[in-house]
Amino acid sequence: MKILLANSNTSPEVTRMILAEAERAASPGTAVTGCNARFGARVIGSRTEAAVSAHALVDMLAEDAPGHDAVVVGMSLDTGLWAARELLDVPVVGMTEAALVCACTMAPRVGLVVLGRNNAQPFRELVESYGLAGRLAGIAALEVTPEDRLRDPDALHQPVVDAATRLVERDGAEAVSLVGAVMVGLPRALEDRVPVPLIEGIACGVLLAETLVRLGTSKPRFGSLQAPAKRKVMNLGPALSQRLSR
Amino acid sequence: MKILLANSNTSPEVTRMILAEAERAASPGTAVTGCNARFGARVIGSRTEAAVSAHALVDMLAEDAPGHDAVVVGMSLDTGLWAARELLDVPVVGMTEAALVCACTMAPRVGLVVLGRNNAQPFRELVESYGLAGRLAGIAALEVTPEDRLRDPDALHQPVVDAATRLVERDGAEAVSLVGAVMVGLPRALEDRVPVPLIEGIACGVLLAETLVRLGTSKPRFGSLQAPAKRKVMNLGPALSQRLSR
Amino acid sequence: MKILLANSNTSPEVTRMILAEAERAASPGTAVTGCNARFGARVIGSRTEAAVSAHALVDMLAEDAPGHDAVVVGMSLDTGLWAARELLDVPVVGMTEAALVCACTMAPRVGLVVLGRNNAQPFRELVESYGLAGRLAGIAALEVTPEDRLRDPDALHQPVVDAATRLVERDGAEAVSLVGAVMVGLPRALEDRVPVPLIEGIACGVLLAETLVRLGTSKPRFGSLQAPAKRKVMNLGPALSQRLSR
Amino acid sequence: MKILLANSNTSPEVTRMILAEAERAASPGTAVTGCNARFGARVIGSRTEAAVSAHALVDMLAEDAPGHDAVVVGMSLDTGLWAARELLDVPVVGMTEAALVCACTMAPRVGLVVLGRNNAQPFRELVESYGLAGRLAGIAALEVTPEDRLRDPDALHQPVVDAATRLVERDGAEAVSLVGAVMVGLPRALEDRVPVPLIEGIACGVLLAETLVRLGTSKPRFGSLQAPAKRKVMNLGPALSQRLSR
Amino acid sequence: MKILLANSNTSPEVTRMILAEAERAASPGTAVTGCNARFGARVIGSRTEAAVSAHALVDMLAEDAPGHDAVVVGMSLDTGLWAARELLDVPVVGMTEAALVCACTMAPRVGLVVLGRNNAQPFRELVESYGLAGRLAGIAALEVTPEDRLRDPDALHQPVVDAATRLVERDGAEAVSLVGAVMVGLPRALEDRVPVPLIEGIACGVLLAETLVRLGTSKPRFGSLQAPAKRKVMNLGPALSQRLSR
Amino acid sequence: MKILLANSNTSPEVTRMILAEAERAASPGTAVTGCNARFGARVIGSRTEAAVSAHALVDMLAEDAPGHDAVVVGMSLDTGLWAARELLDVPVVGMTEAALVCACTMAPRVGLVVLGRNNAQPFRELVESYGLAGRLAGIAALEVTPEDRLRDPDALHQPVVDAATRLVERDGAEAVSLVGAVMVGLPRALEDRVPVPLIEGIACGVLLAETLVRLGTSKPRFGSLQAPAKRKVMNLGPALSQRLSR
Repeated sequence: MKILLANSNTSPEVTRMILAEAERAASPGTAVTGCNARFGARVIGSRTEAAVSAHALVDMLAEDAPGHDAVVVGMSLDTGLWAARELLDVPVVGMTEAALVCACTMAPRVGLVVLGRNNAQPFRELVESYGLAGRLAGIAALEVTPEDRLRDPDALHQPVVDAATRLVERDGAEAVSLVGAVMVGLPRALEDRVPVPLIEGIACGVLLAETLVRLGTSKPRFGSLQAPAKRKVMNLGPALSQRLSR
Repeated sequence: MKILLANSNTSPEVTRMILAEAERAASPGTAVTGCNARFGARVIGSRTEAAVSAHALVDMLAEDAPGHDAVVVGMSLDTGLWAARELLDVPVVGMTEAALVCACTMAPRVGLVVLGRNNAQPFRELVESYGLAGRLAGIAALEVTPEDRLRDPDALHQPVVDAATRLVERDGAEAVSLVGAVMVGLPRALEDRVPVPLIEGIACGVLLAETLVRLGTSKPRFGSLQAPAKRKVMNLGPALSQRLSR
Repeated sequence: MKILLANSNTSPEVTRMILAEAERAASPGTAVTGCNARFGARVIGSRTEAAVSAHALVDMLAEDAPGHDAVVVGMSLDTGLWAARELLDVPVVGMTEAALVCACTMAPRVGLVVLGRNNAQPFRELVESYGLAGRLAGIAALEVTPEDRLRDPDALHQPVVDAATRLVERDGAEAVSLVGAVMVGLPRALEDRVPVPLIEGIACGVLLAETLVRLGTSKPRFGSLQAPAKRKVMNLGPALSQRLSR
Repeated sequence: MKILLANSNTSPEVTRMILAEAERAASPGTAVTGCNARFGARVIGSRTEAAVSAHALVDMLAEDAPGHDAVVVGMSLDTGLWAARELLDVPVVGMTEAALVCACTMAPRVGLVVLGRNNAQPFRELVESYGLAGRLAGIAALEVTPEDRLRDPDALHQPVVDAATRLVERDGAEAVSLVGAVMVGLPRALEDRVPVPLIEGIACGVLLAETLVRLGTSKPRFGSLQAPAKRKVMNLGPALSQRLSR
Repeated sequence: MKILLANSNTSPEVTRMILAEAERAASPGTAVTGCNARFGARVIGSRTEAAVSAHALVDMLAEDAPGHDAVVVGMSLDTGLWAARELLDVPVVGMTEAALVCACTMAPRVGLVVLGRNNAQPFRELVESYGLAGRLAGIAALEVTPEDRLRDPDALHQPVVDAATRLVERDGAEAVSLVGAVMVGLPRALEDRVPVPLIEGIACGVLLAETLVRLGTSKPRFGSLQAPAKRKVMNLGPALSQRLSR
Repeated sequence: MKILLANSNTSPEVTRMILAEAERAASPGTAVTGCNARFGARVIGSRTEAAVSAHALVDMLAEDAPGHDAVVVGMSLDTGLWAARELLDVPVVGMTEAALVCACTMAPRVGLVVLGRNNAQPFRELVESYGLAGRLAGIAALEVTPEDRLRDPDALHQPVVDAATRLVERDGAEAVSLVGAVMVGLPRALEDRVPVPLIEGIACGVLLAETLVRLGTSKPRFGSLQAPAKRKVMNLGPALSQRLSR
């Protein structure tokens, strides 16, 4: 099975980091390939950059997805996820969607730890968009940036433990999802220090993508996810243009 | 007051059509300018094209919004609206958001008439994203395309009346929003044939934008709408690159 | 355009205060007239007084609304709003409804600052009745009465700043509505001290009423807002009796 | 135990009708007294009349409630219920609230049969205001008026059976509440013709009021239901004026 | 009237305690009988034990309910309530359901005090299952076990007062339900120390059961609560086997 | 990896049927073992039987789960799922939960096809209990029993296609879950006849269980899923008694 891990950020070092985790999580027989957005933010940190990344995602997938059995969107806001599902004939999974879905099979209510106070609200919107607001215990935002983590791998340890513990003890979370590409590896490192399951989205995404491939359902031929056809577009990348106008 | 009507479609004829309505609706002293997306679909009709349009919107606004007092997003899925609010220092209104907001001050429950069965679900998601699902009576999807309407201005009359009447009589709608750029003018043409208020988003958008300008509130300096700064991006249009990295 | 600002309180000094703000906010060409309830509380501070005020509102409107193009209900619980919409042929806007609607076009989640701890719950119910509970970040209740404010115009400054800041920092509000007739003027006075937009309902109400007049939709002829006719009533004021029995 | 059945309509014949049912439903030892609104609609049929009735209710209760152990609001929109709870020291129950509460202990989802298509929406709002929208299977509105029923006691039989059956078979109702003062007696008359429990609000209201009296909880001394005190009001009925200003 | 108080715990001392309260609360002419689960936990304190108790409840009711006019489930998680309603031809009330229902006629928002931090989440799920999440102010969990209370009747006084006060002052509860069989008697003992109504489920359950018996509605003959018939089962208690296979 | 497929029905033929599908769906290296409830209904068809099955499930798991890496609950109401999660140290997945979770990664809104009109409501409650009501397009109930299907493997084909098509065309479902143990195999058989993905719970359950095992999170040590300990129980099966009292 071939899975494409599509990083909607433009930073190859983040791609390498999440690809390592994806390969670690994947079942035997699964090959994971990584790819990067061709334009946009190195590390997405604003609504504007996320908006750009939805385009970058479908542009990248039109070119790179053929030949793969499934796609994992490796950017934690999952921006463009439903568009990618419409565009492609293979399963697409968002990393935060996957983490939420897995967490909801572990715990009645789930907490999120996110990076950056200005990110709490966009992630709340994301959870609501999945219809899972009733399962959300709370969102704790750390004042640490992805860049801090890239510089110091351990910078997140204590803040994550503190935030997760607060979500558990005060807000009733019984599982905690560590949200963000740079959270890879932290669940393993910190599981003894938090009394409920810790997860992150890359491993969940790869495993859920495998599940969907094995289920083998077919592409929708009706509704909002049916493949677009004979669309008239201009000034898009060649693969995306061709895909939409076919 | 100067309002920019930003059409995230790339079709100038749609821009002309909605600009005429915007100018008709605007108060004395308000000037409305139209602009078109630089890339993407001529008339957005899929999730993928909508995803692209969020990028097209912020790209266009980075270049064209300076000098205006407010922006109306003239594409009915309002895609990229919150990104645009984050990016700019002036009020931004989505055309369907504006229609919903106005309808909610006219009626306890609101119906939507949309073009295309595959569009019912994305508009349901949009209403839910505004937290207004409890005010939604129903969505009726017409099997008419924007292109049909562009060819024959009256093609929508009878289907819209039938759909709106069903929303009123069966689903309890007490106002009906006609959703889509090509619906401009229809509320006036059809108001005698439907027993509850009919509205569309361009007029609502312009008037609501005027309201927000007159209120004169200031740009958020905290939270998910504060202006992005010193972002590292690549391969974006020059105005957007400059705006994000400043 | 002629707008009637209907104060469901019986206190002319509150009417004068909100009328001044309404005139300040109105567009050129809009004339605002104020009127007072003929019976009920001077300054509504209980559920019982609010219940009375719904009657006082329709009584007052039956007499005073003719000749106006729209009505703004100038009492912050918006009590009787939907009845007024049913009764009249012109648009009616509630001041807190207007503030919420405007705030929701500025911020994903909104906080309210209200006067009096016993008022927090009725305002929560009001937000829920508008279907906007999902957009509510929280409600902060000040232990200051409208009477305190009437005595000392600055009495609310520091408490409002503190409450709004808490709503922003702890509860995730990205706009704050200052609820209550005596809050007029405070958004301008305090905007530099709170990092997200501050608004109040009188200015929003007048501008939203202008919007609805300009939209020019017609009176519902079906449903729960159609005009009542040939009703049998007793012991009501002459204008209201006549209006209901016609 | 003494229960006051407060009819917010001004029609003594409706009071007599519901009083007979209330006396029939009451436990041994419970005496029920009826009273009428002093002003307002004979039979409430619009939002405006309901708005007036909230005032009529608190006016009537200020005068007539003393000496009673509980109050049942005998008008099916329950208008003014929470104000009455604030005003009085004894339990107050709304007839439709009582029917909903009882129905929810009989069935997972409940249907309502109401009189008049323009009433469907106000009752939907009422159910939502009780937080019970998730328990609502649907609302069926009959094109029969209370006046029709007053003329012909059997006029409602077949329409109610048809509507209730539709709510059961199509909408999943497993209990049906017949809403409106003129529905008294119908549950007994029709129970063999509908395969799920039928109830109406007067009997439920009296029995629930007895329950609350027997529970013997004390008047709230904090929050939105604490008794109003030292209020300044004008032009209200003497009993209500005195009660508010004490 | 004969009411069966069915304790799904296996502890006769808890049955005795709640039976005394039930007899105290019942109206004249009502006889209450208690019974115990034949298998399961002495005092249910985990999800697993609650799961077992649903079986114990229907097993016990198949044998003991005949001859009674109604059943009150005397275990605070109400586990198996809807199954019991399906199985029996007489009304069944859950003790926590009854307390919630009564509280909702006293206060717009209700707080719960429960025993054990691990119980907060199951009770949240219970409230949600009744569709009443919108009426829930919060849940406060005490670190006291039912066993502590059985040893020292006053052990709960101060912790309950503190928790209830916090629910009122911080979370906006205007009534507080003390959840758990061992809470009987506490509302009377503590009502002067908390400024809003305090209730518990046994008294509410008995009184609500009386109400349902007096309403006299008939057993559902359609839907998810119709009586099971001709079922094929094995290894169940004789009364339950016989009841299901008849 | 060893997965236990726990059929809470007592019918070995159903166990064999779902075990065959589970083995078909499992990844290479996964061994699936089936087991049956020791008491209860052959094929659960009522709320009472489902209530019994929660006990049967934990009883069966206490004895049979040791030595397995995960459990799939092979009864479509997922009854007892959270209890099983509390009781065991390994992941537990409900078959309908798994189908919902997978469907939600394929489609914005999901339809269910269930067997028996009296089952529509319990499955609605199940979806609501997972917080996924907002993702539910509708539930279609077939008047076919599991026994019909056991007699004639093709009996469900046309009714399922009709029901699924209605869910897609009328209710907006973009994926359809066929609910019930006897639905195994139908997604493959019917996928060409319905234009959106069809799934059922056994395959989803096995694959999701594999995912959770591979994630390798640890047993909660806090909250409502921590392992029960030192519980006092009576008259339970020996393995369950021992497990709870240890």
